[in-house]
Amino acid sequence: MRACDVGDVIMGRLVAAYGAPQAVKAIRSRTLPPEFVAQEAQQERPPDLTTRLHTWYARLAAANPAADLAAGTGSGARLIIPGDPEWPTQLDQLGPSRPLALWVHGDADLRFSCLKSVSIVGARAATPYGSHTAAEFGVGLGESGWTVVSGGAFGVDGAAHRGALAAGAPTVAVLACGVDVCYPSNHETLFAAIKEQGVVISECPPGVHPTRARFLIRNRLIAALSRGTVVVEAAIRSGALNTATHALSLNRHLGAVPGPITSSMSAGCHKLLRERKAVCITSPEDMIDLVGVMGEDLAPHVRAPAVPRDRLNEPTKKVLDAVPARGGAGPASIAVAAGVTLDAALSALGGLAAAGYIERTPRGWRLRKQTTSYRKAPDTLALQPPPTPEPDPTELPPPPDDLLYAGYEG
Amino acid sequence: MRACDVGDVIMGRLVAAYGAPQAVKAIRSRTLPPEFVAQEAQQERPPDLTTRLHTWYARLAAANPAADLAAGTGSGARLIIPGDPEWPTQLDQLGPSRPLALWVHGDADLRFSCLKSVSIVGARAATPYGSHTAAEFGVGLGESGWTVVSGGAFGVDGAAHRGALAAGAPTVAVLACGVDVCYPSNHETLFAAIKEQGVVISECPPGVHPTRARFLIRNRLIAALSRGTVVVEAAIRSGALNTATHALSLNRHLGAVPGPITSSMSAGCHKLLRERKAVCITSPEDMIDLVGVMGEDLAPHVRAPAVPRDRLNEPTKKVLDAVPARGGAGPASIAVAAGVTLDAALSALGGLAAAGYIERTPRGWRLRKQTTSYRKAPDTLALQPPPTPEPDPTELPPPPDDLLYAGYEG
Repeated sequence: MRACDVGDVIMGRLVAAYGAPQAVKAIRSRTLPPEFVAQEAQQERPPDLTTRLHTWYARLAAANPAADLAAGTGSGARLIIPGDPEWPTQLDQLGPSRPLALWVHGDADLRFSCLKSVSIVGARAATPYGSHTAAEFGVGLGESGWTVVSGGAFGVDGAAHRGALAAGAPTVAVLACGVDVCYPSNHETLFAAIKEQGVVISECPPGVHPTRARFLIRNRLIAALSRGTVVVEAAIRSGALNTATHALSLNRHLGAVPGPITSSMSAGCHKLLRERKAVCITSPEDMIDLVGVMGEDLAPHVRAPAVPRDRLNEPTKKVLDAVPARGGAGPASIAVAAGVTLDAALSALGGLAAAGYIERTPRGWRLRKQTTSYRKAPDTLALQPPPTPEPDPTELPPPPDDLLYAGYEG
Repeated sequence: MRACDVGDVIMGRLVAAYGAPQAVKAIRSRTLPPEFVAQEAQQERPPDLTTRLHTWYARLAAANPAADLAAGTGSGARLIIPGDPEWPTQLDQLGPSRPLALWVHGDADLRFSCLKSVSIVGARAATPYGSHTAAEFGVGLGESGWTVVSGGAFGVDGAAHRGALAAGAPTVAVLACGVDVCYPSNHETLFAAIKEQGVVISECPPGVHPTRARFLIRNRLIAALSRGTVVVEAAIRSGALNTATHALSLNRHLGAVPGPITSSMSAGCHKLLRERKAVCITSPEDMIDLVGVMGEDLAPHVRAPAVPRDRLNEPTKKVLDAVPARGGAGPASIAVAAGVTLDAALSALGGLAAAGYIERTPRGWRLRKQTTSYRKAPDTLALQPPPTPEPDPTELPPPPDDLLYAGYEG
């Protein structure tokens, strides 16, 4: 693992073809198998194998695998390789960039935890809106039995992990440094909590510190481990968009949470939506709907609230619309205005009056005041208006002049 | 116009087939042409023509076209019918629901104004975010030579009209009442301003007050007049979504502005995005990009800011990443860490030092403090770091621990 940097696809192909022990032997002897050299020469962009071998040799000479193993196991972590029972086989889709091995630290089983998992990624410099959303998603997914995979960073990552922990669910933090290195250092408590309820994993050997390149290469693991990735907040230039690209190239689901267009921290999400690369995600249920198995994890559809008026039949609605709010009108003029026959108007007026929608005045029929604002329909009979006008907390009050058409006219 | 309610498609077909004078004559005589009756009977849902004719007759008997014309022209409006030079021919796409005529009040030419136009629709009970966005879109579209079409209501509509007026651009308000009726009454000043710079139009005769049905039917005109519609804010149950449906069925472009997922006033927009019915719109330029002619109205693409580091070549970047931030390291260990040869490392270190990225200390090479945060690249040479660290107002400051990887790791 020390011989090459993480994500070295040439090393990946070498190990895939000959196994790790043979690969080490070849590097030690500074001679690559001739078939491998011939094969690599046929790549679209043939790599400079001599330089690469030289680098591997120098790194291997400086490496101390026994010390790494001792440091890793000493810190409480375990090393897993492809074929182990805990190895998440979905990583095999990474092809030659599949990690050679993974350090895993924590009480949960990595493979089992990732069977039903969603990756939550986003800006480190998240806004309060982004952190709030990430935490809500962490809780919502955790409570529905989904594991949250993220990068353990500040901002969106940390909030998502904390949300999942709060829901009592396992969560997986994929680090760009050794699992015994605490980066960012303020997250020591968070990582300790994750190790108790989930796992902290890394493909980097113990003691390795993060570099820019390791963050970018780490992101492919976050995308590959889960069924889908949701970007909560991301600036136009953001590592979260890099993870999103990995998710798309692995044919995983991709979601993006919208935000105010005035926030530069949502610009990356809006770019994904605008280019139709990501699905618009407004709740954990939306995400489960996206990645879940059909018929098993379906989210309830957002539906328009029903209002009592919906239950009136068409002619009655027309008559109700034709009754004036002020003054009054006779049945004949209402029938003409509504475009129905006089008989139909008279019958509808009777029903509407009995239900309290309208009232008879000396000047004719007019609307009753309390029925001009519409609220959610109670599950009762059609012609039963709500007895008292109580404010609906889910709706902003419409301007008073418009009460009559609340919720209809845009 | 008084004989039927607005949007009566049977009347539309009658007038289209026989002309308005013949239609009036037929209704007066209470006998529809036999071919028309036979044709209507073949409709998927054959209408009850007897009742309909009866209603038309009663309405026609109560109508006073001369008084309507006098009232309309007296208020300063003009009546246009299909075929007139000012008639916007894009309304013909409405088929039988095309309005029989339009009352137009204002100094602008309706057809000319709508040639390059965008409809901005949204909630009356808009949040400050929605009103702000609508106004910004009104200004942005107006300044780019686009006419804003909207419904003259409170909230999004009003803000969009005001934005267009502020940009000195024409704007079209499509009312659901007579053009001489001021609804909402608080918008008297706004409508007066629109009449000076644009037009207020309606298919309703003078004096007619708005009803729920007229609002919904009016919406098809807002969608049909422009090249595309953008929904700024909309609850799940909203007239703006009705306009959006009309825009889609007319094959017009549809955009939706995202907002916080915590705002119920953006839920309708998010639904359109989630169902991939609308394109995500974050600026007036996005909307122009959507509705504009290719090569003529292209919006600039949102691009990630360039940082000085982008201009370094790959081996130099690797070496820079391998240089420690604290302490120091010799060229040999940096070469091993970066995975490059010693010669390449020495050459890169020299260049990086000359450019001020790194410095030599008694303990070896290390990063220079002021180059660890990256800002927008000046348009100069690659290896020239910005001289003084000045804060970038477009980026939130990353947490201090993370300065090294600002903008990369998510």
